[in-house]
Amino acid sequence: MQGSALRALERIRIVLVGTQHPRNIGSAARALKAMGFGAIHLVAPEKFPHADATALAAGADDLLDGAQIRPTLAEAVAGCTLVLGSTATQRAVPMPELSPREAAARLLEASRYGDVALVFGPERSGLENTELQRCHASVCIPTDPDFSSLNLAQAVQVLAYELRLAAMAQEGLDAARPPPDACPPATHDAMERFFAHLDQALHAIDFHKGRSGMTVMRRLRRLFLRTAPDERELRMLHGILADAQRMARLAGAKKVP
Amino acid sequence: MQGSALRALERIRIVLVGTQHPRNIGSAARALKAMGFGAIHLVAPEKFPHADATALAAGADDLLDGAQIRPTLAEAVAGCTLVLGSTATQRAVPMPELSPREAAARLLEASRYGDVALVFGPERSGLENTELQRCHASVCIPTDPDFSSLNLAQAVQVLAYELRLAAMAQEGLDAARPPPDACPPATHDAMERFFAHLDQALHAIDFHKGRSGMTVMRRLRRLFLRTAPDERELRMLHGILADAQRMARLAGAKKVP
Repeated sequence: MQGSALRALERIRIVLVGTQHPRNIGSAARALKAMGFGAIHLVAPEKFPHADATALAAGADDLLDGAQIRPTLAEAVAGCTLVLGSTATQRAVPMPELSPREAAARLLEASRYGDVALVFGPERSGLENTELQRCHASVCIPTDPDFSSLNLAQAVQVLAYELRLAAMAQEGLDAARPPPDACPPATHDAMERFFAHLDQALHAIDFHKGRSGMTVMRRLRRLFLRTAPDERELRMLHGILADAQRMARLAGAKKVP
Repeated sequence: MQGSALRALERIRIVLVGTQHPRNIGSAARALKAMGFGAIHLVAPEKFPHADATALAAGADDLLDGAQIRPTLAEAVAGCTLVLGSTATQRAVPMPELSPREAAARLLEASRYGDVALVFGPERSGLENTELQRCHASVCIPTDPDFSSLNLAQAVQVLAYELRLAAMAQEGLDAARPPPDACPPATHDAMERFFAHLDQALHAIDFHKGRSGMTVMRRLRRLFLRTAPDERELRMLHGILADAQRMARLAGAKKVP
């Protein structure tokens, strides 16, 4: 039987990307189950299922048996309104960085409106920059600057612990309702469609002027993920892009005599 | 080089009693070093030193090499002014029970006056009642009531993490740092210039289509104020608007024969 604290955790997907050692999947599953999570999500694990995972799960076999396995991160976080990426240290991609406690509060809050995800990269390298660009913010466990080497399952443990505390605290709180005119936050998929449209529109109005648009798109992704638009805002932005494209077509039609 | 946050941890002895699996000693050492601890204390470990401990320490060998090994708990906590014992569940010995966060605060506070200790029992059975009776209070990590099985190194990780946070808070450090290439946030005036430009561009591309643009601008203000662009991001947005306006001029030049 699950208490309401656990129901708050049901919409939080813990996603392990490209995990190399099955023992870490097992340890993470054990940590998650002890903290009240009912599922583990895996993206292209190197070896799974595996006896080492089962051994380290130490009774959390049901999470392993029911593991949600997806080939790509995009599929694992499809439909999520908030995606946070765990990082060991500062990355080339500057993005908002949350402490574990801040991240837990954000995830809990956002989970009231839909699914959310917390993503962990492979042991050796962590999340790639292209993966981090799908995240609204990064989460960094504070470590000794001279030895920031945390085991993957240990990182999962710390974040899952903070999420459990946050869920327990929320359980004690009155279920505050969202403001009356609140619109659901846009899903990951909807954001990706917006970014694709934005990229097309920038090409149409010749913003790139021969340069690669990659840096610009990376910065714009960061800017718009940070603001986490809701569905209505996204419709408005699509409308603006469509009008800019229309002007570009008219301008193009003019240039060709 | 240790920061001052670590000095606060120097007087906190993390004591593992009767550990059965050397891998847990290694994992615990890694977790402790990452959280800024410089030592690990062992009471009668079953197998130590051991290759498994070294493998799992993953670079925290110095803690293993310098491990303080004692035959009894009494000797390991000699001279300590506060001793807390980690327990998985309520024990037959009724004693004050602290949450990890409360325990961290108590240990930090007491460490200002002398050495203190946080004690973990063997994997299978935990601390014995006679050992718990040496403790001032117990510490219990909140777990799912139906699955309270935390690995020893995971428990050490959670408590060491709380101790690091407490030490950092004590030193007035902020866990979150600004990203390395952070650009100053845009000023209020710069934001207003951007909104004026945005409004002009929306008129230019005929987004409003005869409607008042007030509602749209109100929503866009909210969206962009929420994301709090920095100066560089604002320059990029101005550039996009300028190109959209250029297209609108070209399109308009076409319409007028």
